[in-house]
Amino acid sequence: MQYAIGVDLGGTKTAAGVVSAAGEVLFSETIPTLNRDGGGAILDATAALVSSLVVRAQTEGLEVAGVGVGSAGVIDAGRGVVVSATDAILGWGGTALTAGLASRLGLDPEAVRAVNDVHAHALGEAWAGAAAGTASSLLVAFGTGVGGSFVLDGQPLLGHRYVGGHVGHVASPYAFHEGVAVPCVCGGAGHVEAIASGPAIREAYVRLGGTSPAADARAVFALAGAGDAIAIQAVGMGAAAAGQAVAGLANILDPEVVVVSGGLSDAGAPWWRPMERALRAELLPALAGLPVLPAKLGNAAAIVGAARLVLTAPS
Amino acid sequence: MQYAIGVDLGGTKTAAGVVSAAGEVLFSETIPTLNRDGGGAILDATAALVSSLVVRAQTEGLEVAGVGVGSAGVIDAGRGVVVSATDAILGWGGTALTAGLASRLGLDPEAVRAVNDVHAHALGEAWAGAAAGTASSLLVAFGTGVGGSFVLDGQPLLGHRYVGGHVGHVASPYAFHEGVAVPCVCGGAGHVEAIASGPAIREAYVRLGGTSPAADARAVFALAGAGDAIAIQAVGMGAAAAGQAVAGLANILDPEVVVVSGGLSDAGAPWWRPMERALRAELLPALAGLPVLPAKLGNAAAIVGAARLVLTAPS
Repeated sequence: MQYAIGVDLGGTKTAAGVVSAAGEVLFSETIPTLNRDGGGAILDATAALVSSLVVRAQTEGLEVAGVGVGSAGVIDAGRGVVVSATDAILGWGGTALTAGLASRLGLDPEAVRAVNDVHAHALGEAWAGAAAGTASSLLVAFGTGVGGSFVLDGQPLLGHRYVGGHVGHVASPYAFHEGVAVPCVCGGAGHVEAIASGPAIREAYVRLGGTSPAADARAVFALAGAGDAIAIQAVGMGAAAAGQAVAGLANILDPEVVVVSGGLSDAGAPWWRPMERALRAELLPALAGLPVLPAKLGNAAAIVGAARLVLTAPS
Repeated sequence: MQYAIGVDLGGTKTAAGVVSAAGEVLFSETIPTLNRDGGGAILDATAALVSSLVVRAQTEGLEVAGVGVGSAGVIDAGRGVVVSATDAILGWGGTALTAGLASRLGLDPEAVRAVNDVHAHALGEAWAGAAAGTASSLLVAFGTGVGGSFVLDGQPLLGHRYVGGHVGHVASPYAFHEGVAVPCVCGGAGHVEAIASGPAIREAYVRLGGTSPAADARAVFALAGAGDAIAIQAVGMGAAAAGQAVAGLANILDPEVVVVSGGLSDAGAPWWRPMERALRAELLPALAGLPVLPAKLGNAAAIVGAARLVLTAPS
């Protein structure tokens, strides 16, 4: 069987694993992302991480076909270059990601590929997770941010400028307070991400007059669980905005299945139930039977999807 | 050169034309759609229309490769069957569209293909209209309804159940009146179509307290042109809701270009300016240079796109 290294390069940590052609992670390792040190230092550390996995794979007699990377930022998947990234990873924008890794690892440039991490995440779930076996799937992740990816015939829809998937930056009727649009991290206002992300749920709790200490969304969920009416309202609004946004997208894209993932979906029924209720209420009748599935692969999804970029179809 | 017949089968009329492999309509004819008489009668009339065009093409020495149909309703493009249609065309749902036409015309079943009319419209503009030469385009049409289609590498995204493109049935913050979601023709409420379609603009004028007689959107545009403040508000809201919705979709799909069409876009600057202003305000910075183009082919777009279904690439 063929194997590949999948890398999930995020703002705070970088995880990599050896993935089989069946989509299984055999073993993995994680390092901190050197997010203050620039592109060269990140490539050095990532190449060292990949090398150690390659060595381990070789000692076990596994043939490694290549390296796939799912990275934070806007990734030009054609050239393998980081088009832009936020200050969460200083100096990452402009980095020749695939060429830099290939040269450090002594690999053929064709053997290293990269996409944005949300697309890798969706590809992983589409290939070997919740959406395995489907012809098309829409994945939307609700956590610190809101992002998504539509996977059609095994290919994530990357977009002409590789910025496709910004599901969080779509207008939401829920993202208003006393008639004024709630500011969004993108600089706009009134967006899904401004009401449905984890930080947005915490901000809504404060904005609606919540007075108990709540450092983050987790704390607001705990308050809601204990019966705090304002916390219940903040969670309910965020979940309803999430479900409504996913349904609107489903009405347009008509995917075979929808996969919902991210830290908020991990909160279980208190978030999932109002999310799915709002989603179902918004679907067109023709989509009434649309499967809405929780993600299956957890943190491994982006590693698996990244590896898929350089693995030939298993069949 | 190769030629094909393109058919645009709508609720009130059916137009068909002979289209060249360069995307030009050489000649066309229009008949009323027999929208009270059922699928068999509609197929008979459509086959007669196509036959007369084929005869005319043959007398001019043109080789007709096949027949493409863009039809109202949900069209299963794989089987060539009308999955469902509204009561605007009684008995159309369930009709074996391509097989029925092929047998009536004595053609090979493979020589007749069909898609929904909005997808045909978008394919026409992508192939030979405003988006010619692009790798991807998002077309959104604002008229009696709101519909759209994303064309990627020459293929409209039809959706798993062939219901993709329901751009009008997505939540819009503009589709509220005194805090209550405005009802939508789909049975839902608060959707883009409920505030941005032509009938919706007329309804908004009445709802906002407009007192001049206004039978339709055209009348509201005339009142706005004459300085009626409520008419200006109704048009502005509809246009802003349209632009915001298109931008939200662009943030997710990242098309090379956007094409805006439909009766409202034909109203020119009074609608286009507030639409484009709202659109640009909502785009992510990475999409700042996104071309937003008016459609070029007018009523011929769906004929051209339908013909494209059975024409090989002109190269």
